[in-house]
Amino acid sequence: RVNADRLWDTLMDMAKIGPGIAGGNNRQTLTDEDGEGRKLFQSWCDQAGLTMGVDTMGNMFFTRPGTDPDALPVYVGSHLDTQPTGGKFDGVLGVLSGLEVVRSMNDLGIKTRHPIVVTNWTNEEGARFAPAMLASGVFAGVHSQEFAYARKDPEGKAFGDELKRIGWVGDEEVGARKMHAYFEYHIEQGPILEAENKDIGVVTHCQGLWWLEFTLTGREAHTGSTPMNMRVNAGLAMSRIIEMVQGVAMENQPGAVGGVGQVVFSPNSRNVLPGKVVFTVDIRSPDKAKLDRMRAKIEAEAPEIADALGVGCSVEAIGHFEPVTFDPKLVTAVRNAAERLGYSHMNLISGAGHDACWAAKVAPATMVMCPCVGGLSHNEAEDISKEWAGAGADVLFHAVVETAEI
Amino acid sequence: RVNADRLWDTLMDMAKIGPGIAGGNNRQTLTDEDGEGRKLFQSWCDQAGLTMGVDTMGNMFFTRPGTDPDALPVYVGSHLDTQPTGGKFDGVLGVLSGLEVVRSMNDLGIKTRHPIVVTNWTNEEGARFAPAMLASGVFAGVHSQEFAYARKDPEGKAFGDELKRIGWVGDEEVGARKMHAYFEYHIEQGPILEAENKDIGVVTHCQGLWWLEFTLTGREAHTGSTPMNMRVNAGLAMSRIIEMVQGVAMENQPGAVGGVGQVVFSPNSRNVLPGKVVFTVDIRSPDKAKLDRMRAKIEAEAPEIADALGVGCSVEAIGHFEPVTFDPKLVTAVRNAAERLGYSHMNLISGAGHDACWAAKVAPATMVMCPCVGGLSHNEAEDISKEWAGAGADVLFHAVVETAEI
Ligand SMILES: NC(=O)NCCC(=O)O
Ligand SMILES: NC(=O)NCCC(=O)O
Repeated sequence: RVNADRLWDTLMDMAKIGPGIAGGNNRQTLTDEDGEGRKLFQSWCDQAGLTMGVDTMGNMFFTRPGTDPDALPVYVGSHLDTQPTGGKFDGVLGVLSGLEVVRSMNDLGIKTRHPIVVTNWTNEEGARFAPAMLASGVFAGVHSQEFAYARKDPEGKAFGDELKRIGWVGDEEVGARKMHAYFEYHIEQGPILEAENKDIGVVTHCQGLWWLEFTLTGREAHTGSTPMNMRVNAGLAMSRIIEMVQGVAMENQPGAVGGVGQVVFSPNSRNVLPGKVVFTVDIRSPDKAKLDRMRAKIEAEAPEIADALGVGCSVEAIGHFEPVTFDPKLVTAVRNAAERLGYSHMNLISGAGHDACWAAKVAPATMVMCPCVGGLSHNEAEDISKEWAGAGADVLFHAVVETAEI
Repeated sequence: RVNADRLWDTLMDMAKIGPGIAGGNNRQTLTDEDGEGRKLFQSWCDQAGLTMGVDTMGNMFFTRPGTDPDALPVYVGSHLDTQPTGGKFDGVLGVLSGLEVVRSMNDLGIKTRHPIVVTNWTNEEGARFAPAMLASGVFAGVHSQEFAYARKDPEGKAFGDELKRIGWVGDEEVGARKMHAYFEYHIEQGPILEAENKDIGVVTHCQGLWWLEFTLTGREAHTGSTPMNMRVNAGLAMSRIIEMVQGVAMENQPGAVGGVGQVVFSPNSRNVLPGKVVFTVDIRSPDKAKLDRMRAKIEAEAPEIADALGVGCSVEAIGHFEPVTFDPKLVTAVRNAAERLGYSHMNLISGAGHDACWAAKVAPATMVMCPCVGGLSHNEAEDISKEWAGAGADVLFHAVVETAEI
């Protein structure tokens, strides 16, 4: 078993960097805080005797050698970046549990045939730079590095410039590494494990996603002196599209979600009808056909809704991944580990996207999940217990060591 | 008649300060650009032989003496501040036409019994600091100066601090001045004059307003892993409230408007359901009973809409003025001037709020309006012709001189 106390202390130490305003964290990707978090993580990995490699996307890889010089490494990791009002565990738990796995192997003098590589992927959240899972996506060949470098944050700063600024452009070619297997441990971010009173989620699939960025073009005009029948009201069109998206998600129950997290009115003045409204629809389903049907319906109906108000409507897909089926052998390794350790478990479909989804394109991959209180994530109040954290890390430890072969 | 070419050149010179991004202006109140605009205006008034007074709200008063030392001045003015994406004429036309009236009086050697005071009111727009017409409101005793000084812009900067920063805190007690009459010339900002092919709007009334700032409290949660039935979606509640406001405005036709210009999602991240949404409803009507009924209905229905989604809802009235009836004698002076000069004219109810609405509380007041292209205002594309500008300034000139008594 891993040292759950040590894991917890390590989590709490990392949470001191980029504290939020309500007990969580704001350590968004490529900020100074992200740089500080990376340094702290690096110092811990140094102490654990690991060797660092960093690629040109800022992905960090810390290697514990194996006994067989020809054996590909088993990768274990997640991300240290957070949402602007994020929790202390989303991503961080997976990275620091990777470290805890290695620390426990060191404690117990465990040697494996395959090397172990603890990984921190850059910009998983996609909060500052869309899309999410950007750097693992480049690693897996889904995006080009040029595309990634050119992503802009809301202030117009480019990913490539910010990566340079915080000093984490590595020299490794991104995606050059080959993996024997990839494991990612994460909080569920949903309510199922807690409701079902299970310690461990054995993650068999991940639902797919579309991020549809709508740009509505109305006519900026005075809210007081512009008669109702002369308005070209992009905000009203947005409201109707949000309601329509809600309807599309509801009529696809169960097995679908849809919502809007980001809205930007221009000029956003109380007495000006917005001339431009940009907002992002987030739809997901584990069923690819359903997901694509939802997208098609939303993309067909939104322009009609806008058009009825005279509002222009354009849409760009700015994020996408298809539903993923994780590697059956690794899934079994996770289930067996939970069983062997005496933890209650159940199969899960991940509701959120993860770097494991892209890793799965280039290697056998899977995930382990633990419950989180009230299913709450992307909220500073996100919470887990030390016992939950430790149980998942135990399962990760066993599955990783088994896959890396003693 | 005034010198329409000179007026136009003066307008175009002012428009060089704080240029917008699409041909208009961004010279928001108490910015460096506002400071620069004030200095330019001051220099022109100096050249016209006027004497400056500035009060503790930064309102600027430029006096042309009268022949009777006991006669109260006739005030003429408007505002130099603009929306973030404002036009070149909203407010500015009224201030610089006041200057043109005085320049023309100088040219023609006209002496009046009453002094003439050309005025620039601080923060008419209410874009940076709510409410609109803030400084004329303090002048009229509607708000306290402490209230005004404490207003915050979206970055949290206080009105009082910003007024000091740009160096325009005057030494006059605000509201101490007494007026014989107040005239304000403004573009219509609506479509009626152009549609009716009239040169001049004789403004008899101004419609009343409520700004209702709603704060909706949902639960920040992951857009992917949070099932539809566990969402507490403040953004969806906002959409339904925007639709409800639209309905309330429509069922009160004619003689009412309602809409939303400002929306702020928190944390405003694509994969986070908003935990907080703040937005401002702007409703107006010339009929006080109707306006208050609309407010009551919106304030009753919004919490029900929110509650059905589990969303918390609070509302604060952050801006208000009642419908105004302008002074019949001054209204007649405006109408007679238009008639005498041979300009076509019609009675108008102002759709927008103006400093004249507050001035009307402490003095006889009225307004003159000219058409604007397509009724468009609060838009950088706001436009008028030199002829329209000159016709209104002619009418203003005649009405002011008549009221100030030769
Ligand atoms: N795990 C997680 O929150 N990832 C962010 C990408 C997504 O929105 O699913
Ligand atoms: N004239 C004008 O646009 N004033 C701003 C206040 C309002 O919203 O009516």
